Amino acid sequence: MPPNPQWVKKLAPAAPNGGELLAKERAASNIDVDQLAEYMFTKEALDQRERILKVLAADPVFDKSQNYFQGRDARIKASLGKAKRLTQLAVQHKWSPEDHLCANELLTEATPYRLHDTMFLITLREQGTPEQQKLFLKKAENYEIIGCYAQTELGHGSNVRGLETTATWNQADKTFTIHSPTLTASKWWIGTLGKTANHAVVMAQLIRDMKTHEVLPDVHFGFNTMDNGFLLLNQLKIPHVNMLARFSRVDPETGKYQRPANPSLIYGTLTWVRSNIVLQSGSTLARGVTIATRYCAVRRQFQDLDAAKDAVGENQVLNYTMVQYRLLPLLAATYALHFTGQSMVRLYQENQKRMSAAADGQLDARRRPGPEELNPGTDLLADLHATSCALKAYGSTVAGEGLETCRRACGGHGYSSFSGIGSYYADYLPTLTWEGDNYMLTQQVCRYLLKSARAVISGKAGDNDTTRILKTYLDRRDTTGAAYDILASDSDLVAAYAWRVAHMTIEALQKRDVEKQSWNSLLVDFYRLSTAHAQYMVVKSFYDALFDKEQAQALENSLDRQSVAVLHKLFRLFALHTLVEREADEFFAAAATTARQISLARRAVMALLAEIRPHAVRLVDVWKFPDWQLDSSLGRFDGRVYEDMFHRASELNPLNDVVFDSNPNSKVLFRGRRGFRVSFEGRVC
Amino acid sequence: MPPNPQWVKKLAPAAPNGGELLAKERAASNIDVDQLAEYMFTKEALDQRERILKVLAADPVFDKSQNYFQGRDARIKASLGKAKRLTQLAVQHKWSPEDHLCANELLTEATPYRLHDTMFLITLREQGTPEQQKLFLKKAENYEIIGCYAQTELGHGSNVRGLETTATWNQADKTFTIHSPTLTASKWWIGTLGKTANHAVVMAQLIRDMKTHEVLPDVHFGFNTMDNGFLLLNQLKIPHVNMLARFSRVDPETGKYQRPANPSLIYGTLTWVRSNIVLQSGSTLARGVTIATRYCAVRRQFQDLDAAKDAVGENQVLNYTMVQYRLLPLLAATYALHFTGQSMVRLYQENQKRMSAAADGQLDARRRPGPEELNPGTDLLADLHATSCALKAYGSTVAGEGLETCRRACGGHGYSSFSGIGSYYADYLPTLTWEGDNYMLTQQVCRYLLKSARAVISGKAGDNDTTRILKTYLDRRDTTGAAYDILASDSDLVAAYAWRVAHMTIEALQKRDVEKQSWNSLLVDFYRLSTAHAQYMVVKSFYDALFDKEQAQALENSLDRQSVAVLHKLFRLFALHTLVEREADEFFAAAATTARQISLARRAVMALLAEIRPHAVRLVDVWKFPDWQLDSSLGRFDGRVYEDMFHRASELNPLNDVVFDSNPNSKVLFRGRRGFRVSFEGRVC
Repeated sequence: MPPNPQWVKKLAPAAPNGGELLAKERAASNIDVDQLAEYMFTKEALDQRERILKVLAADPVFDKSQNYFQGRDARIKASLGKAKRLTQLAVQHKWSPEDHLCANELLTEATPYRLHDTMFLITLREQGTPEQQKLFLKKAENYEIIGCYAQTELGHGSNVRGLETTATWNQADKTFTIHSPTLTASKWWIGTLGKTANHAVVMAQLIRDMKTHEVLPDVHFGFNTMDNGFLLLNQLKIPHVNMLARFSRVDPETGKYQRPANPSLIYGTLTWVRSNIVLQSGSTLARGVTIATRYCAVRRQFQDLDAAKDAVGENQVLNYTMVQYRLLPLLAATYALHFTGQSMVRLYQENQKRMSAAADGQLDARRRPGPEELNPGTDLLADLHATSCALKAYGSTVAGEGLETCRRACGGHGYSSFSGIGSYYADYLPTLTWEGDNYMLTQQVCRYLLKSARAVISGKAGDNDTTRILKTYLDRRDTTGAAYDILASDSDLVAAYAWRVAHMTIEALQKRDVEKQSWNSLLVDFYRLSTAHAQYMVVKSFYDALFDKEQAQALENSLDRQSVAVLHKLFRLFALHTLVEREADEFFAAAATTARQISLARRAVMALLAEIRPHAVRLVDVWKFPDWQLDSSLGRFDGRVYEDMFHRASELNPLNDVVFDSNPNSKVLFRGRRGFRVSFEGRVC
Repeated sequence: MPPNPQWVKKLAPAAPNGGELLAKERAASNIDVDQLAEYMFTKEALDQRERILKVLAADPVFDKSQNYFQGRDARIKASLGKAKRLTQLAVQHKWSPEDHLCANELLTEATPYRLHDTMFLITLREQGTPEQQKLFLKKAENYEIIGCYAQTELGHGSNVRGLETTATWNQADKTFTIHSPTLTASKWWIGTLGKTANHAVVMAQLIRDMKTHEVLPDVHFGFNTMDNGFLLLNQLKIPHVNMLARFSRVDPETGKYQRPANPSLIYGTLTWVRSNIVLQSGSTLARGVTIATRYCAVRRQFQDLDAAKDAVGENQVLNYTMVQYRLLPLLAATYALHFTGQSMVRLYQENQKRMSAAADGQLDARRRPGPEELNPGTDLLADLHATSCALKAYGSTVAGEGLETCRRACGGHGYSSFSGIGSYYADYLPTLTWEGDNYMLTQQVCRYLLKSARAVISGKAGDNDTTRILKTYLDRRDTTGAAYDILASDSDLVAAYAWRVAHMTIEALQKRDVEKQSWNSLLVDFYRLSTAHAQYMVVKSFYDALFDKEQAQALENSLDRQSVAVLHKLFRLFALHTLVEREADEFFAAAATTARQISLARRAVMALLAEIRPHAVRLVDVWKFPDWQLDSSLGRFDGRVYEDMFHRASELNPLNDVVFDSNPNSKVLFRGRRGFRVSFEGRVC
């Protein structure tokens, strides 16, 4: 293709252009973007992001201009270069681990070092003995060895206890033999990491002796091995010291297996990981919402059907209520998930303090239940673990599906790579499956809720939020019933969500314990119950962020009235929209609301959309995503949507240099940039 | 990577393997797959598919082994080769247009010729005068000219009337000047077609005269132009004969514009296209359901929590009710959409016969409304057009979102390219936006329903299904109310769906006509109403396919009792699951059902899942997708899931030949297969 001629370079988009439209949007709202952003993320974090961004944006290795044109092969190779440069920059600029994390987030791609930086290092730190850390950790931190985390197998994902790879203890020479007995035992999904790593943490079934073959499930295990995309092991011998042994070990003298003293400590890491997924689900979704909201303010299409006869020009797409109904509740969800994630992280930290204070070995180590079954009602970790499961499943589902909603709200251009949503969505989606499949996790939540309900009914329950809402329900169910004024009172709105959770819990308990229905037959009920629980937690966390004594005070000290008022509207939009959109009949069936209230809630949602609409662009600006990070034509801060799309298509696209021979009977397929011709079979001719 | 060593080649998946599991599945059901397939698709169509498949599978140009590894650049080039070979094969084997279509479906990729074969040829045929067809059509059919269809612009998708490209009539030399006045006027999304085409049909605003600039919207326009990925035109002159003039034209002598005599004829094509989208939505979804169902029968994970203490081995994933709840209603939807699409195509053909019989020019051509506004209640086309809009929006949404549900039901491996769902899903998704954005279309549906309701209320309505259900509702609403025995009676179940549509229509009419609410404020109501209408049509079509006199007779003549009984269960599952899953509160609010019925419907759904479960694999076999078409490790007919994944990853993956240098401080980035090294900046060193 020849370069753009002069007359094309002179063309401008139809007026008013995107810059003018976004300026008008920002002028129409008085939300103080910087103030609200600092309240949400802290000034330190925002400054850090800017500091790191400058370094990355200035380095040609991180050039993003070809990202949307490269195939998998080229991208993986480029990504290795980026990963290497990141580690060099970290040394050069003395980055903290948090700086490094921030750089990865700005880069927004899973480089080949990612699992080394996260799972491999974390596992060595948390599960290695001091001796093992000396052997492996330092070298790993200096990238002298590069590791991956080999858990999932071709035949096993969710069910870790079903892994087929074996580790057999050989008393004679005090070694382990690691073995893949089947094809389905092949370690899988180690993916691009396999290309880069020269060490691996491998999860395997520990077999005590070749003769007895007794299987001890759920043991972590580490050793050196060859690099590979997938991993099969043929009777490989490794020394005793390579089994990570901080929590459980094989006694080298007797060959006896010693179980972990406190399994809760291991579950703590998972809870931490999931709490962060909840926090990230807010910002993940916010990227899509930022792009779609800005583009829908720039894009104009059709006139309003009721527009005056002499009306000129088309309507901004964001003015259509159907677009608002799809986007603005998601905007509210970004804030809701952010506050929820923050509250989860806070709770986790409090609990870790408590746990560290308590001595090891208090819990009955002979049982192997997850913490959601341990002492329900008294153990904060049990409550936290169940909540983290519910919120991980719910938050990542909302974010994943929400991104797709954002893409569709961008109309045809949403399908363009240049939208910046498609590839990001594809990269995020596996989050719905890993760290606990979103459907599987809901069973753990319900196991905990059922245990809590049994404890409450038998009068043996401790006092926490879950037992309180169950008690309230049981006390009132057959006496006063519920009478929640969800449209006039925010706390009643939260209480209605709580009532629904309690109602569904007691119903499930009836089916399981009284009617003796099989666990399997209740999985759909459990999924709905866990979702209801998560929704309650999010609504409650958002409510607490606004009205809880301490937090309300912080809010008042930091924000002006406008911002607080808009946050309040976002809270109500999230809570009421969630109530009416899919779950209305559950609120009705639980008698948590009347049918009339549901129909009034629908009206209230439409009114809230109109009230939030003028602030939409500023509310996404608060997330402060740099254009470099979004890498989106549609989501540009300056609104130059069409100029950017045209630039990418006409000047950055490498395919422009190829000329097709479109005659079906010609032997030539296409001509390259240097005039060579390529035949049907791919030969240059 | 070295080739797989002997000990790896000998490994087999853990027992029982996929082949054994699928054989057991097929043995457990007595559905006659061939018989049911022939009833659904006809023997002729199945034979045709097999005949074409043999030709394609034997030709190395159509080799699929690298599809999941190639980048966009390589795939586009390969696709051009495939397109060319297809046209050569068509000549060689004397393929009919239907054969050609079948080949494209088996190939499952949009080759660069696709829009030439479809939109370009169709437009020339339907909108060209005999003179113009002589000039362009023959050459196009012989691929002497290759065309594209340039409608969408950078700034305009849905709103065709807002297109910015202009066509100005010059009386002096009897030519048109085609011009792009802005950057947003750039023709866009002509995509890979732009690479191949040397002709284009261009949609532009007809301007009668440079002086008056009067705009006449919605005129089709054709002319020759240069090839381009996007298209901008700088005062390009073309002769008068290049404006496609079958329906509307500019008189070359007077310069006067003559409008189309009967706009319905133009809308007929759109209705045809949408009817086919409905039909295809069934088979599209069926591909995902086939893959997921087979894989979930092969994949085993966890033991049932209530399993006997001495139970051995893990449970097939398909046995979990949560998996059944996600997959089997979609399986039912594939059949429902198929029967609905067939019935739409039948109705369309009947109507075309009627239309041809009627003379042109009967309708008032001065108005420019869509047919959904023309003579509601008497015009079959109006009803058909509204229904096709509703069903296009609903069917493609169900198929698109259903594919994603299928992918997630495959757990982690669902995200692998080898699943065969991901890229297919990505290719299908734009269907939700093109040929009428699924949200936009719902407005046309509701405009028609409101018009029909007004006609019914004023006593002037003709007799068709829509007016009948409105009359029933209005007659009974304030006298007897509804009393539908949805769990005991299939016809009552259909009637409850009809009642809900009528209730929502009358509610919307009240808001619009009595309360004078703005059109914009009702868009969310309209979306829900249109969805309700589509669901009613699908439920009714499925019901008719089973119980309508003529069709029921055909069914009885062709199928054994088993198959009819299972089809009946699929009908009930589709209707009851749709009722309880998202829309329950609408049925309740419309007083179409009681709250108790909804809770009983939930139970009925669970019971139906258990009844359909044993037939699941055979029911997807009925769709008869060849493995070559699915190109999926997970969906293989023979169940060799793990062997196939391992083969693709270890033997077909070209990245295996590249070796990374993972030391972050090394200047070398990776080593190629011939031992060369590539530096950070991409230089070979």
